[in-house]
Amino acid sequence: MNQLIELKRVTTKKDKPDLSSLGFGKHFTDHMFVMEYDKEKGWHDPRITPYEPLVLDPAAAVFHYGQAIFEGLKAYRTSDNRVLLFRPSKNIHRLNVSSERMSMPPLDEELVLEAVQQLIDLERDWIPTKEGTSLYIRPFVIATESCLGVKPALQYKFMIILSPVGAYYANQLQPVRIFVEEDYVRAVRGGVGAVKTGGNYAASLQAQLKAEKLGYDQVLWLDGVEKKYVEEVGSMNIFFKIKGEVFTPALNGSILGGITRDSVIEMLRSWNVPVHERRITIQEVYEAYQRGEIEEVFGTGTAAVISPVGELSWNDERMIINNFETGELSMKIYQEMTDIQLGRIPDPYQWTVEV
Amino acid sequence: MNQLIELKRVTTKKDKPDLSSLGFGKHFTDHMFVMEYDKEKGWHDPRITPYEPLVLDPAAAVFHYGQAIFEGLKAYRTSDNRVLLFRPSKNIHRLNVSSERMSMPPLDEELVLEAVQQLIDLERDWIPTKEGTSLYIRPFVIATESCLGVKPALQYKFMIILSPVGAYYANQLQPVRIFVEEDYVRAVRGGVGAVKTGGNYAASLQAQLKAEKLGYDQVLWLDGVEKKYVEEVGSMNIFFKIKGEVFTPALNGSILGGITRDSVIEMLRSWNVPVHERRITIQEVYEAYQRGEIEEVFGTGTAAVISPVGELSWNDERMIINNFETGELSMKIYQEMTDIQLGRIPDPYQWTVEV
Repeated sequence: MNQLIELKRVTTKKDKPDLSSLGFGKHFTDHMFVMEYDKEKGWHDPRITPYEPLVLDPAAAVFHYGQAIFEGLKAYRTSDNRVLLFRPSKNIHRLNVSSERMSMPPLDEELVLEAVQQLIDLERDWIPTKEGTSLYIRPFVIATESCLGVKPALQYKFMIILSPVGAYYANQLQPVRIFVEEDYVRAVRGGVGAVKTGGNYAASLQAQLKAEKLGYDQVLWLDGVEKKYVEEVGSMNIFFKIKGEVFTPALNGSILGGITRDSVIEMLRSWNVPVHERRITIQEVYEAYQRGEIEEVFGTGTAAVISPVGELSWNDERMIINNFETGELSMKIYQEMTDIQLGRIPDPYQWTVEV
Repeated sequence: MNQLIELKRVTTKKDKPDLSSLGFGKHFTDHMFVMEYDKEKGWHDPRITPYEPLVLDPAAAVFHYGQAIFEGLKAYRTSDNRVLLFRPSKNIHRLNVSSERMSMPPLDEELVLEAVQQLIDLERDWIPTKEGTSLYIRPFVIATESCLGVKPALQYKFMIILSPVGAYYANQLQPVRIFVEEDYVRAVRGGVGAVKTGGNYAASLQAQLKAEKLGYDQVLWLDGVEKKYVEEVGSMNIFFKIKGEVFTPALNGSILGGITRDSVIEMLRSWNVPVHERRITIQEVYEAYQRGEIEEVFGTGTAAVISPVGELSWNDERMIINNFETGELSMKIYQEMTDIQLGRIPDPYQWTVEV
């Protein structure tokens, strides 16, 4: 840490929101972290300030040419009142993977980790206690230079905001119905599917609306080239358990390398469950289904941790997975992962970082 | 027009920038147009106000999930001091094509046209007079709802800002050197390549930087599926003149339907020059080049109108087009188009709209 993070506290704290109706990303804490970048000074003026509106020129590049990247991770409160982060360095490193692809300046990863920790420490009383709730951490970078030329901006703002969020599942894991999308495409090799940039999410909304209209919860994305290979489910990675072995699409440049995905793979391998990262066609999924070999399907992501898939609809074929029930392995991963995140069991993987 | 546009004038006008160093999109006029959207009121509160910063919550959707669309067109001052717009309804309609794909609410096209005209009329003295200069018009829509859920936002802001811009060419048309890009991809069918959304531009920057490093001016994009078919050049459409006939890639869902492209096609047809809109492989371009049949290659767009291509570099092949000189047809189109835009000749196509 070579830069001091300045701190300007609020004079009056906000009332905390009702824990029973937190939702996701609607409420924000009293403070935020900010720093700016320009060509001359690099990243500078790191500070924690009261949460307040941004003032930007209407010509700021983020409004016009989409240079924007973000991350999402959570702080958890343990039953003995400690505060744990889950693999924060992984998220912070991915920010830099994203910034490189989007022609944005790299961040000092140590400084960002320090910023996350100081901000969380300051906002400790915002971390909700109820089962399944947490404090969502949203680091993001936007291009702020006021210029309409199409080029990498010369000025940026990096911020971290915090939002107390409700439990993803009201009671227990809830299998979802998935529509295999064959018209809209999320990403293609040579594009930006492997990085967390706003444009990927905006582009996905039409397909999500279409799936919802058809009565499904989310979309399963196929590759943009052949529309044959399974890529992601909604904004999660996807796993298939077939005859006791687990399969997930290999990171191919158009799939986001999820941190939960990475953790699930490591966990399964430590349990001696075979995991295969490779290309998976939707056709072979269907054929395995017909042979009765598909045991479980689940998505992985920061929000849900594990999201069991109860149904996959592909063309006119409806595949009902595991009788629309949460599978044993899905449940076991979810339990172990959340137990580690909440400090209920020892963390053999050294994933958690105490604040 | 069913909504009144309110007007709040500045008290002090800015100094006008030096006409000899305008550049592109760096200076903005005294006023701007703004209106807001929410679910209950729809688009409301249309107004012209002093040009001023935007105040947005750090959780505003545009910073995180990329719901942002824009347009670009120009107002020209004629030698007899009239003000002309070039096919503004086309740009405004395309704004709605973009908004639909990006799950954003449609605009009232008549109101937007009225807003453009009123704003231009008010800022008439900002339209520069020097040859090749103009007043660039940037309408854009951004998602403003403060919520981190991935979903179409419930609140938006539509704005029009104006920027006096310099001539694209210092003296005369200047052929450019183009690198045919085979790794990075701009867009794919099923994606958002056919709409003007920020994410497309952010995603293109890495390839542009790579081309510049290799000594080229811009990139020629190939299709994302087979990397075989020509799509766009930089952020322009592309045309080839081969044995007296003109070829341009058909609009296939991943190419932006340029308004200059459309105008060039109409102009050529009125001159009885055969124009073919179809798939064009880079291989057939190369083969035509080897046979000595390629007469001209040029890009089309609002900024340059016509941008002659002097060199195409594909793998290890360097194709020098028309001896690196501006072709006769390129020149003739440029002359006719700018003569119409500047009101120097009658407009047989009814493209111009006087303010």
